[in-house]
Amino acid sequence: MGKAAIDGEDEALLAIGLAGGGVAARRRLLETHASAQAALAAGARNWRSHGLDDDQVLAVQDPDVELHARCRDWLSAPEHQILGWHDPDYPALLRRIPSAPLLLFVAGDPACLWHPSVAVVGSRSPSVGGRDNAGDFAHALATSGLAVTSGLAAGIDTAAHAGALAAGGRTVAVLGTGPDVPYPRANAALHARIKAAGAVVSEHPPGTGARRENFPSRNRIIAGLALGTLVVEAAERSGALITARMASEYGRDVFAVPGSIHNPMARGCHRLIRDGAGLVESAEEVIAAIGPLAADLAEALRGRLADPNSGPASEGLGASLPLQAGWQPADPDYQRLWRALGHDPTGMDRLISRTRLTAAELSSMLLAMELEGRVCVEHGRYSRKR
Amino acid sequence: MGKAAIDGEDEALLAIGLAGGGVAARRRLLETHASAQAALAAGARNWRSHGLDDDQVLAVQDPDVELHARCRDWLSAPEHQILGWHDPDYPALLRRIPSAPLLLFVAGDPACLWHPSVAVVGSRSPSVGGRDNAGDFAHALATSGLAVTSGLAAGIDTAAHAGALAAGGRTVAVLGTGPDVPYPRANAALHARIKAAGAVVSEHPPGTGARRENFPSRNRIIAGLALGTLVVEAAERSGALITARMASEYGRDVFAVPGSIHNPMARGCHRLIRDGAGLVESAEEVIAAIGPLAADLAEALRGRLADPNSGPASEGLGASLPLQAGWQPADPDYQRLWRALGHDPTGMDRLISRTRLTAAELSSMLLAMELEGRVCVEHGRYSRKR
Repeated sequence: MGKAAIDGEDEALLAIGLAGGGVAARRRLLETHASAQAALAAGARNWRSHGLDDDQVLAVQDPDVELHARCRDWLSAPEHQILGWHDPDYPALLRRIPSAPLLLFVAGDPACLWHPSVAVVGSRSPSVGGRDNAGDFAHALATSGLAVTSGLAAGIDTAAHAGALAAGGRTVAVLGTGPDVPYPRANAALHARIKAAGAVVSEHPPGTGARRENFPSRNRIIAGLALGTLVVEAAERSGALITARMASEYGRDVFAVPGSIHNPMARGCHRLIRDGAGLVESAEEVIAAIGPLAADLAEALRGRLADPNSGPASEGLGASLPLQAGWQPADPDYQRLWRALGHDPTGMDRLISRTRLTAAELSSMLLAMELEGRVCVEHGRYSRKR
Repeated sequence: MGKAAIDGEDEALLAIGLAGGGVAARRRLLETHASAQAALAAGARNWRSHGLDDDQVLAVQDPDVELHARCRDWLSAPEHQILGWHDPDYPALLRRIPSAPLLLFVAGDPACLWHPSVAVVGSRSPSVGGRDNAGDFAHALATSGLAVTSGLAAGIDTAAHAGALAAGGRTVAVLGTGPDVPYPRANAALHARIKAAGAVVSEHPPGTGARRENFPSRNRIIAGLALGTLVVEAAERSGALITARMASEYGRDVFAVPGSIHNPMARGCHRLIRDGAGLVESAEEVIAAIGPLAADLAEALRGRLADPNSGPASEGLGASLPLQAGWQPADPDYQRLWRALGHDPTGMDRLISRTRLTAAELSSMLLAMELEGRVCVEHGRYSRKR
């Protein structure tokens, strides 16, 4: 309950971000104002015009004092920050998923959330071999320069975070609790190490305890942050399969490690492989598969860092991406899509009819072009950037 | 060199079958005469008109006396027989492959070659677990009523044959040696048991020893006899992968058992799964997948047994298949194919352009219809039967 100095923008973002209810209206509100402060200052009539309902208007006007004080306290630490939907630092890949959170609480280096990453997930009670495999894959992925994203759970998640840290690499833990609540408790030390060497992220405000219903929704953030999801071991019914299904829905790669048919913890992986996940025997196969998308993400980051309107550069990644008016993609499908895109926002249906490509094809092509900074998306409609 | 009593038809078939060289001309020769004896009696001019070359004509006229005597000796045993290309007992599924042998030497029950079967193949030096899996899968397949086809090799093949025998089921061994030459020698007792409880089959005449070059071609017969091929364990370079590739080319199902990423003998299986083979954890999955094709094969056998022109029924499988002139398949793709098929033999290219189906789709549909007795194929051209 201390009085910590946080800036007016964060205060405004907390007021909007903690108002509860659906996110769509609050996204629109943040998108159409220059800042959260401007959105807050616009007043109830303006909020309602963006779709905020009575409960949300009331919550913005009359915030939960105790909760806000807790958030302010937490934010007073230098390595703690919040990222709002309108923030240019909001992670590009996560922004792309339909149910992206409006607000992220980040402890550690928020630049990690932009770093190309692979989600390594699986059973909370793996076999000894599965635990070793998780550590080995994470170690190799981190050594190759990729971040390892996972959920800080017991078992595979723990081994994955630890493997990335042992390699001296980056790792991101996505929590179903508040960013300051390690769960399970046994992972308190690991939580602290991840905060110091990577990032801990949650959509839940500080102090939120472990609630069963928050864990499945945590999985969408893991899948959404990562270029691809690797399931190391999973029983036939397992949260890791939910993460994998979400990754697949978001157009990301899904990988699974096979195992003995006598290992019940391999069943979930075998099911994923049957359903189309890539069977991988080594981290090199994962790296080779996600390489192209990772390069695109690096390009997007470069483009953003070169944009004077973007926030402070968290990491120096070098030259800007030259955006030529007469740019022509080399691939014929991309050419078709580029011609089909105008400066007027265009919906997916129309793009399908214009290009005769499938929704799945278009979806991954648009993501790549968005990451390259060629295309922008608003309210589900796509247009050329600039 | 004894003087054994074999009939004139077998003598004639041996003369043509052992003439060497390409098989296409000799297939045509057998197809256009009522019997091998009639084909032989037609004379050199007629043989040449079917495409037999000078060497073949000479070999038919002046056969290798010693080799023929050895074959006659072998044929004098009651459980030994030969099956020629023109024989209605020639296995329906094997007949379908492009490089089907002209002549088969069969020791045991030739009806086994018509029995719906699964090929169970793999490494000659499997892990202990792989050997157990091969035996377990074969036992379960045999228990369900399927025959198990394999190659009598050490390792997985041996475990597969033994598993089927232990279940009291049928098993077929396809040899790269003569039908009377167990290879490896250590499998002499197994060879004898298979002959007694199933069938041993070879395209090579009795007395043919183990020659390196005959083993890969043996694999095509394994793949060709079976409804599907299951690879239990295989290194990255392995004969079992050749069998699997052939099965896939013949439009048959390919299955592979996954394993630990640390087991080098699982690598070949993982590669097959990546290339599209079905990942299977149990025999039930194999049975479910091949069920429809197995039912078709049973129909074809029923139809053949009801045909008074077919050879002696080896097994009583019941009622004949009613062939209605106005028959219409239920499936729209099959309807399209049925309309595209006339009573004039039609090549694959034309069927593709008429139906706009792919060669792979047509190939499996035509096989099913051939097995149902709806379609016949001659020289690679298809027509409605009757």
